Amino acid sequence: MKNVVILGSTGSIGRSTLEVISKFPERFRVIGLSTNTSADRLIEQAVVFKVPYVAVSDERAYLKVKDALKGKDTKVLSGKEGLVELACLEDAHTVVAAIVGCVGLIPTYEAMRAGKVIALANKEVLVAAGSIFMRESSRNGSKILPVDSEHSALFQCLLGQDRGALKKIVLTASGGPFHGLKRDVLADMTAELALKHPNWSMGRKITIDSATLMNKGLEVIEAHHLFGLPLSDIEVLIHRQSIIHSMVSFRDGSYIAQMSNPDMKGPIAFALSYPERLEGVMQDLDLSALSGLTFERPDLESFPCLGLAYEALRIGKTMPAVLNAANEVAVSAFLDGIIGFNEISVIIERVMDVHEPLELDSLETALEADQWARKRALEVIKS
Amino acid sequence: MKNVVILGSTGSIGRSTLEVISKFPERFRVIGLSTNTSADRLIEQAVVFKVPYVAVSDERAYLKVKDALKGKDTKVLSGKEGLVELACLEDAHTVVAAIVGCVGLIPTYEAMRAGKVIALANKEVLVAAGSIFMRESSRNGSKILPVDSEHSALFQCLLGQDRGALKKIVLTASGGPFHGLKRDVLADMTAELALKHPNWSMGRKITIDSATLMNKGLEVIEAHHLFGLPLSDIEVLIHRQSIIHSMVSFRDGSYIAQMSNPDMKGPIAFALSYPERLEGVMQDLDLSALSGLTFERPDLESFPCLGLAYEALRIGKTMPAVLNAANEVAVSAFLDGIIGFNEISVIIERVMDVHEPLELDSLETALEADQWARKRALEVIKS
Repeated sequence: MKNVVILGSTGSIGRSTLEVISKFPERFRVIGLSTNTSADRLIEQAVVFKVPYVAVSDERAYLKVKDALKGKDTKVLSGKEGLVELACLEDAHTVVAAIVGCVGLIPTYEAMRAGKVIALANKEVLVAAGSIFMRESSRNGSKILPVDSEHSALFQCLLGQDRGALKKIVLTASGGPFHGLKRDVLADMTAELALKHPNWSMGRKITIDSATLMNKGLEVIEAHHLFGLPLSDIEVLIHRQSIIHSMVSFRDGSYIAQMSNPDMKGPIAFALSYPERLEGVMQDLDLSALSGLTFERPDLESFPCLGLAYEALRIGKTMPAVLNAANEVAVSAFLDGIIGFNEISVIIERVMDVHEPLELDSLETALEADQWARKRALEVIKS
Repeated sequence: MKNVVILGSTGSIGRSTLEVISKFPERFRVIGLSTNTSADRLIEQAVVFKVPYVAVSDERAYLKVKDALKGKDTKVLSGKEGLVELACLEDAHTVVAAIVGCVGLIPTYEAMRAGKVIALANKEVLVAAGSIFMRESSRNGSKILPVDSEHSALFQCLLGQDRGALKKIVLTASGGPFHGLKRDVLADMTAELALKHPNWSMGRKITIDSATLMNKGLEVIEAHHLFGLPLSDIEVLIHRQSIIHSMVSFRDGSYIAQMSNPDMKGPIAFALSYPERLEGVMQDLDLSALSGLTFERPDLESFPCLGLAYEALRIGKTMPAVLNAANEVAVSAFLDGIIGFNEISVIIERVMDVHEPLELDSLETALEADQWARKRALEVIKS
């Protein structure tokens, strides 16, 4: 029986994680859940899974949850300290880091320092502070198991392989809803259209990132940290059908690829059950569906966000944190109808242009760069 | 430095093995080579690789080799005993079993008993006597590393994976030169046409087996023994491009596939260097070539040999040995223009129909079944 804490249990990944866990009650026990503002959903989850600890970041939501769970066997924690306490619960085996944004950095880091296995869905952890996390992982030996479908695929492809012979990582990308469109047409694309992802059902922010290819850019940065490869050995290939989730190539000319239906329950379950695999997590692939898969190079002119991510990784230091924060602000403005689709990359580029990258010596430095970039991005949007 | 013995060095796999070894002189030393009748080629190989031991099965060829290598530092062995002595050379680390036919059974078995790593290309070893070899492998812990591209792919896909979660093996098949043709058209196909394989450059016998799909049938039997899966969990899928060499699926719905250009040097090098991978063995895949790969079910009506192999595996005991021997005789008759393409399966079926399968208690039983089936197949051809 593995005891699991889910940081960010009310989001898309958090809910899918609970769905997986509910099918294997003999293997997993949920001992901690958290949310920022989704009080009602958290209350329901806490009751259904009889969870001993929950943490609520937002003050109003905290009061609501506290009130609703009065008399139940659930301790309600609050604020940043509550999140860290939850992440480090003595009995926890695996901490699912499914918070969106830099607020997940400190609790995830503390969980890692406490020796927990990290099932990692919180992109900011590796994008904003990858070197710090990987250093801590190799220092104390605590595992980071990726929950992203692409990184889970890479992780699965690399199991048992000669890591010294690894030559290249190929991240596949669905290309999102706007694949094939040129910049002049993209100018008119709305948030509503961007939210219609062809293959994956995900949160709103990540769906827009998929449309701009920034999602893939962030994944390149994550892959760099997780698998220790330089930028030049990480390729992105547009693969519209989302069947091959990623692949690796070795120096002998051999490739290993991981495939499945596009279903986040696959990577979630694998991170929870690793090194074992659970029965019937995803629907079996229809192998005739493998016919006619397509692979093409990404169009970096129409989708400059991917190039910006490569550039941020090349510069390193605090630049990836800035890229990520500026993107978050720009995507939010796009979702609110304040800016157009093409302006997302323009804003990020303008913020990156004026950033003086600092050595990433601590999480605080990453968080400060994040805050700086958010402020700066808002200023650019206003101007 | 690994010392390598190649049983059957003058055939297609043997020569490719020497090609791989010649590129990595710091890693491998050839200490033994063998042939049946190809004296000239063996003499050349022995001189080029300065090989201390060779074995020649055919008496005339033996005398020729013996004479040619007089005064050289090469000991020339002869007959069945010579082959066994070569296979068990004290200094040998890896024995490449690349003999075609049941004559490879005893030397390969003795090499295994002597604790050598077996790089296995000799199909008959597992087809005719798989249970005996696998029992010996698990008894003394000696490794069998497959050299076939499909089994090497499966082996690579399964490295480091949760073997208990293995659900299915999918062997891909190019479909050979006659893919898509129906039985009435196949009746007129000649050996010359059958020898034009679209993707692989191989020996004559195996190229015909590829045209009839018997090659895939034999591989199903081998996969059953190597990976311990029942017949029902081994699928065959026609994949014309020979890029995905095989795949495995797990109970969670995840697939792992191995891909490369079709080049036997890949599996050969991997078997030699395992667990490492060697640099630049195959040309790198052009990833855009992955677009438009096709996968379809095999046509068992037009290509009944595959069904016969499944049937032989289902019956078990000495039946796979009989299938294999009858096929060898029938293919030879087809190559000689004595029988038509469709008659290959008819002859095998007739031989299988009258065989009383015996328990596979020893290699001798397998060899006797082989001899019986050859005789019987010749009788069927004559009648």
